[in-house]
Amino acid sequence: MVENCPAGLEISETDIQVELDRRRPGQSSITTSRKEGDEVEIISGVFEGKTTGAPICLVVFNKGQHSSDYENLRHTFRPSHADYTYQAKYGHRDFTGGGRASARNTIGTVAAGAIARKILKEKAGIDIASYVAKVKDVEVPLPLDLSALEIRTAVEQNSVRCPDPETAQKMIDLIEKTASDKDSVGGVVNLVVENTPPGLGDPLYDRLDGLLSLAMMNIPAVKGVEVGGGFRMLDKTGSEANDIFYNDNGLIRTKTNNSGGIQGGISNGMPILMSIAFKPTATVLREQSTVNDAGEEVMLKVKGRHDPCVLPRAVPIVEAAAALVLVDQWLLQKTARYDGL
Amino acid sequence: MVENCPAGLEISETDIQVELDRRRPGQSSITTSRKEGDEVEIISGVFEGKTTGAPICLVVFNKGQHSSDYENLRHTFRPSHADYTYQAKYGHRDFTGGGRASARNTIGTVAAGAIARKILKEKAGIDIASYVAKVKDVEVPLPLDLSALEIRTAVEQNSVRCPDPETAQKMIDLIEKTASDKDSVGGVVNLVVENTPPGLGDPLYDRLDGLLSLAMMNIPAVKGVEVGGGFRMLDKTGSEANDIFYNDNGLIRTKTNNSGGIQGGISNGMPILMSIAFKPTATVLREQSTVNDAGEEVMLKVKGRHDPCVLPRAVPIVEAAAALVLVDQWLLQKTARYDGL
Amino acid sequence: MVENCPAGLEISETDIQVELDRRRPGQSSITTSRKEGDEVEIISGVFEGKTTGAPICLVVFNKGQHSSDYENLRHTFRPSHADYTYQAKYGHRDFTGGGRASARNTIGTVAAGAIARKILKEKAGIDIASYVAKVKDVEVPLPLDLSALEIRTAVEQNSVRCPDPETAQKMIDLIEKTASDKDSVGGVVNLVVENTPPGLGDPLYDRLDGLLSLAMMNIPAVKGVEVGGGFRMLDKTGSEANDIFYNDNGLIRTKTNNSGGIQGGISNGMPILMSIAFKPTATVLREQSTVNDAGEEVMLKVKGRHDPCVLPRAVPIVEAAAALVLVDQWLLQKTARYDGL
Amino acid sequence: MVENCPAGLEISETDIQVELDRRRPGQSSITTSRKEGDEVEIISGVFEGKTTGAPICLVVFNKGQHSSDYENLRHTFRPSHADYTYQAKYGHRDFTGGGRASARNTIGTVAAGAIARKILKEKAGIDIASYVAKVKDVEVPLPLDLSALEIRTAVEQNSVRCPDPETAQKMIDLIEKTASDKDSVGGVVNLVVENTPPGLGDPLYDRLDGLLSLAMMNIPAVKGVEVGGGFRMLDKTGSEANDIFYNDNGLIRTKTNNSGGIQGGISNGMPILMSIAFKPTATVLREQSTVNDAGEEVMLKVKGRHDPCVLPRAVPIVEAAAALVLVDQWLLQKTARYDGL
Repeated sequence: MVENCPAGLEISETDIQVELDRRRPGQSSITTSRKEGDEVEIISGVFEGKTTGAPICLVVFNKGQHSSDYENLRHTFRPSHADYTYQAKYGHRDFTGGGRASARNTIGTVAAGAIARKILKEKAGIDIASYVAKVKDVEVPLPLDLSALEIRTAVEQNSVRCPDPETAQKMIDLIEKTASDKDSVGGVVNLVVENTPPGLGDPLYDRLDGLLSLAMMNIPAVKGVEVGGGFRMLDKTGSEANDIFYNDNGLIRTKTNNSGGIQGGISNGMPILMSIAFKPTATVLREQSTVNDAGEEVMLKVKGRHDPCVLPRAVPIVEAAAALVLVDQWLLQKTARYDGL
Repeated sequence: MVENCPAGLEISETDIQVELDRRRPGQSSITTSRKEGDEVEIISGVFEGKTTGAPICLVVFNKGQHSSDYENLRHTFRPSHADYTYQAKYGHRDFTGGGRASARNTIGTVAAGAIARKILKEKAGIDIASYVAKVKDVEVPLPLDLSALEIRTAVEQNSVRCPDPETAQKMIDLIEKTASDKDSVGGVVNLVVENTPPGLGDPLYDRLDGLLSLAMMNIPAVKGVEVGGGFRMLDKTGSEANDIFYNDNGLIRTKTNNSGGIQGGISNGMPILMSIAFKPTATVLREQSTVNDAGEEVMLKVKGRHDPCVLPRAVPIVEAAAALVLVDQWLLQKTARYDGL
Repeated sequence: MVENCPAGLEISETDIQVELDRRRPGQSSITTSRKEGDEVEIISGVFEGKTTGAPICLVVFNKGQHSSDYENLRHTFRPSHADYTYQAKYGHRDFTGGGRASARNTIGTVAAGAIARKILKEKAGIDIASYVAKVKDVEVPLPLDLSALEIRTAVEQNSVRCPDPETAQKMIDLIEKTASDKDSVGGVVNLVVENTPPGLGDPLYDRLDGLLSLAMMNIPAVKGVEVGGGFRMLDKTGSEANDIFYNDNGLIRTKTNNSGGIQGGISNGMPILMSIAFKPTATVLREQSTVNDAGEEVMLKVKGRHDPCVLPRAVPIVEAAAALVLVDQWLLQKTARYDGL
Repeated sequence: MVENCPAGLEISETDIQVELDRRRPGQSSITTSRKEGDEVEIISGVFEGKTTGAPICLVVFNKGQHSSDYENLRHTFRPSHADYTYQAKYGHRDFTGGGRASARNTIGTVAAGAIARKILKEKAGIDIASYVAKVKDVEVPLPLDLSALEIRTAVEQNSVRCPDPETAQKMIDLIEKTASDKDSVGGVVNLVVENTPPGLGDPLYDRLDGLLSLAMMNIPAVKGVEVGGGFRMLDKTGSEANDIFYNDNGLIRTKTNNSGGIQGGISNGMPILMSIAFKPTATVLREQSTVNDAGEEVMLKVKGRHDPCVLPRAVPIVEAAAALVLVDQWLLQKTARYDGL
């Protein structure tokens, strides 16, 4: 359900489906082999091809699900998964893979994000890209020297969505080996947003970096977020880390970008840079010790088809999550200044 | 302004002042020498020593400010500070150190957090502690083997708020040297929350880790956030990183805590663990190149009294920010289950 | 989409359908003859018959609609309808009777209200009833001397939902005559809520009477709202209008109820009484003068099947709107007092 | 605390004080004789005469209060006042006349409304006026044939704020007689808003008439709200009540205004018309029977200085409440259409 979308925007299922196709399972040998079409239908909020101002209801019916794969999870809590915490919170949970804890819920983020991205691109020229920067200990060499648009193209050239072909192949090899070991790996997705105007974000309680971090941490499996230099800039002193302003033919820019495009919680016009850490997929096909809802210690062997590494499919999710934050802040900024009313 | 505080809670200025005193400037040789009493007054919402259910208005008047220290910032943007982004956003800014971009705004977080902490402690037994884990490259040896309560005591034994005395001294030496170099350093604050009941946090869009990350990123100078293992667990596979459940005399616990006490966005009853990266203070006393609001490149030398390292004073801010998130989620959980109504 | 419903509530399509059937068209000779099944499907948020804590998505597909009935409204604004204001607001509108301006949107209110009502009844014993008190100048004699439960039964004995049979027949006659004149009439629905505990509602900006008024005014065609004595008590002085407290075997009650069960924005435990004015249906089958979207004055004759009087079908809508406000306030009250945590 | 005010608006204490002076007690012989200066101070959010985009904190310290007047209310509930409901809700209340139940809280509405009104006037030319239309059974003859601006002037010519001098005198006589009887009276305030652009308000859950009704019902003592014809148009049929559109030199207007300027929850450009019913002041100086917090029936004689009729002082409150709703909707409308971004 997408609320507060301006009326009169041209939007179709195709605009949304293209992003869902980047997220859906079964795209390649290194993601889950579950076949889920993930076809979106617009149920309301669009009339004769344009948004009406009413909430836009997007539905993706859950078709490829094998409930039988999940029956042994009715009473047993998968380690590092949400089973136990849901049970503790609600006293009741959908254990069949379609509930609120399922990563399938990111379909909603990606679908809504496709609309957000269209507005940002058409009205503000904002370009959003992300890529797999690290899988376990395999890292892409940085800096990339690619624009956001170039990254968008490069990541679609291989199944792991790493823009450097050589690193991509190492990552694919690692993921395939991990899958054959019935294990899983995590890694880092980097986000780049170009052409963001200065001024987005609120200064104190809804800082742009805060809202982006919330959006990223709301993605399942994310355990860390950095903006700009993040943890990696702590070896510098202030005089080394500060981003020095200069006048670039009338445009105020900074010589470095340790701030990651955000200062005082507000965008400064430089590229927004974030790194997002995804833990290794909790669901592994090996037998693991755990407890059941009677508190008994039991052995669990999960069935079904799971991603040995969620990173390649996380790329469109990260972009969508960022687009949703940015479009809200961009719209809010329209009424932030009295001289602009 | 603290809203939605339950009525009938006993609260006094003293309860709040004790936390403000941990945050205020001028506490020691390694923080700013500005003298700010930061005395809190309760203006409304408390009657005969108890909250009334109305919003609680807390005021800390700004007394120690030297506006003259700031006059040279009227037209000039300090590097890596919020000056330029505020000007870009609002077309107008308070350059005198009392505006919304000032870290003085964290007084509000600390004051409100003191109330939140009292509720959490009295009603749920939740203990919140944090400490300086790293200053530039000086790190405390981990794990600490201290409870949250012990950490609270230990950090008050030295001016840098590091619970390990030997490391603390190294950090103090480093900060003093940095100050004499007219430079600044950053570091990491670790957060530990014990006795959180399982079930806090929403599963999808207001995940507990998401809300905590938002709260931390809303603190000035924070550029990175980790929950549990964060970026540091990426070298592990899923079978190594998963936290195995076991039955600890009737209590479901996990053998490791890479999840940092949060799974699927919901607390699991294990200690909540976070690491928060603070960049080096942007305001350094060295001359730096920058631009002014006419776009001209100028040299800037900042006057006044600034922290060479914000970490010691960040400890109560981090705790307060966490308390505010937790008390909201703890209250919300009271109505999450039909069988508890 | 119903959010924040506690987990573990038993709910089925049947619980909801029974209220939708009271609202749907085609129930009798005095409402529109459109046949709309209005069958509700629960798409998410319920698992094995119980709510999961996730948002509950209820869908009623629009089946009986004849779009051709509306083609002549593409460019023409019906008098006193939302056509012109939608066009002015959004520059674009769904003119086919399925848009956000259609009274069909009250299906959502009624469906969600059925869930709210179930919680209020099961957990707090709160009884909600409403009835048609006036159609044009035909009024039910007051006071009724019926409990809320008795009203609920009585209104289902006739097609106009007036609990007094004699008045009901006069109202039916009037509506039938109006329909044969291709005209429409309005009237008043009265609301009675019994067994509300004292203490619901916020004192200042979300007063219970304020929220109920918002909920009622959000129903299409409502143009007036009274709480307790409303406009009708203005001929009294304060000493006459004041509701005197007395002790009714340990229960504090008032001798009169001009306050309508709400004092200072908060329920006082007496029955909540409201009167809601519905204007005559804007869509009449007579030819009317109006303008089109080119600003030309034109004659319009509306086709289709419309209610000559919305009052009978408004009864379940008013009850549902009240239930939604009350359940929110009842849940909020669970955390309003420190001594109850 | 005024949030989301655009940055760069010129605002001073004087802009706000002028409206507070219309609301404050002690203005004339027919209002309370309490002397309260009600002087506003801007504590934050304004720098060098302009708003900064930060929340604007306005403080009016409570100076003229005699707590001793209230001591006999510590345990006793005034009839038709909020004493009992507050006690029931919170278990604790401020009985000294300064709490959240006091009509003094409308100072905040009036102060914030002054800022809203300034924006509406400067940027949209919107004129807001209200007047006392009825005191008990003394009514102003309608229609008035005065513009909103003329009403604003006319109501300041007499102490009761009725724009018709002859009716005003009858009202004053009635109020003075009521006061000498130690009793009170209520009445009706009418609201007129001119030059509202078409398109303000949301169609379904935040309808403009709904939000205005919420705002009015949130004012203490209000028990009824009408938009346009309200309850008074129920004797008409649809064909009589419908407002026929016509083209007034390129402007779409309606021949009548039973809709009160709002159709389908959205403004249509015609004047917004509302009537608001205020019950007789609950606090009368006669002895009344009531109960205390031990449940005992007792006699109560209230001391102090109270308004025998709140209507004259309600005029600026009604205007301010309307301005706050309208400015929010006017700002929201800036981002409602894609073609306007």
